[in-house]
Amino acid sequence: MKSHTEYMTFNTDERRAFVRITENVQSAVDVSGAAEGMVLVSAMHITAAVWVNDDEPGLQEDTLEWLDKVAPPSWKEPANEVARELLPDPGDYRHHRGGEDNGDAHLKNLLVHHQVVLPITEGRLDLGPWQAVFYCEFDGRRSKRLVIKVMGD
Amino acid sequence: MKSHTEYMTFNTDERRAFVRITENVQSAVDVSGAAEGMVLVSAMHITAAVWVNDDEPGLQEDTLEWLDKVAPPSWKEPANEVARELLPDPGDYRHHRGGEDNGDAHLKNLLVHHQVVLPITEGRLDLGPWQAVFYCEFDGRRSKRLVIKVMGD
Amino acid sequence: MKSHTEYMTFNTDERRAFVRITENVQSAVDVSGAAEGMVLVSAMHITAAVWVNDDEPGLQEDTLEWLDKVAPPSWKEPANEVARELLPDPGDYRHHRGGEDNGDAHLKNLLVHHQVVLPITEGRLDLGPWQAVFYCEFDGRRSKRLVIKVMGD
Repeated sequence: MKSHTEYMTFNTDERRAFVRITENVQSAVDVSGAAEGMVLVSAMHITAAVWVNDDEPGLQEDTLEWLDKVAPPSWKEPANEVARELLPDPGDYRHHRGGEDNGDAHLKNLLVHHQVVLPITEGRLDLGPWQAVFYCEFDGRRSKRLVIKVMGD
Repeated sequence: MKSHTEYMTFNTDERRAFVRITENVQSAVDVSGAAEGMVLVSAMHITAAVWVNDDEPGLQEDTLEWLDKVAPPSWKEPANEVARELLPDPGDYRHHRGGEDNGDAHLKNLLVHHQVVLPITEGRLDLGPWQAVFYCEFDGRRSKRLVIKVMGD
Repeated sequence: MKSHTEYMTFNTDERRAFVRITENVQSAVDVSGAAEGMVLVSAMHITAAVWVNDDEPGLQEDTLEWLDKVAPPSWKEPANEVARELLPDPGDYRHHRGGEDNGDAHLKNLLVHHQVVLPITEGRLDLGPWQAVFYCEFDGRRSKRLVIKVMGD
């Protein structure tokens, strides 16, 4: 069995960001020499995620707006009444009692999921035509890591 | 290491549908000859998903209704005020500016997740008694693919 | 290829609970003898999940409150108007027609996802500093199982 491990580090300018990493994952597969197998792509932080979807800026803006409504941050005014009511009673996350302000980012990690496993066939990521891989940052502006683990033959 | 890859194609009559594929995944495991390992079941589209849950029609109807409230489509009247407020401001997805109408299906892909990895033990999918595997279509009525990748010994 | 399978059984006192299992998963990796590979940690029930996040009680309380708002139970009064509107029309889950009362727990399984795959590097779970692994129970007080499947070299 062949295996290969790589780490990527992100330090985004914005608090929230989508970073395309499809080509980085393919490169790790290339280095591994695996023709058949699987590659795990997993955020090593609890306020980040990995999503396979369309590389379309409008969709990403939609998704960030929607995530802010379903898992609202308390470091800014809630987007609307629904977002306000989805915040904890009576108004702020318990997680913030220790001085944190990223409670919403943990819930966004839950919604998007922190990892994906991608199939490798004949040495290539076996993705559909519109599937791109994104690192999803929900509490950036500091150094955060992701692991890529290839396993195959 | 043994590996085996199969593709399934779906073309559902309805825009949204759950299609049971447990037996198809087991068949792919049978063909692979793997007694111990893992099988990845992954939608190759960005408006579909894979869910492991109960094969119970009432639950599936509940889930589609709930998904429409949390990730509302804009091609029909919102189910209620919550659904209306979870749509983007001022009312439609940015993703639709190019002529698409499936913005909600991308968010449903996010919620349900596009893939699962199932354990294989003694040649069988090692599932609990109520676990069935479903392809979840959120923008059907056209040809869509799924990949099954078995890896084991 | 080395592989190893373990099962864990949970019978929580409370209906909902987070149970830390990081050390149990590491133990299974130790027994397997795998230095490089992946380990699948997967609930065998359709009303439970696995989450990798912070071992912080305030965050867990926030998460349970939020899950009850987004995927509301009908066996207690909805937490607020949003939760009430996210219930099915006209008020209870179709899934409950057979006598069940755990419709919300199926949706929480969907939100949190029932499984994770963790990387193994040099015989250790290759996790970030704050990543802990939790079994998430949403319909407990009865015996429920989880499978740990290690694959590696």
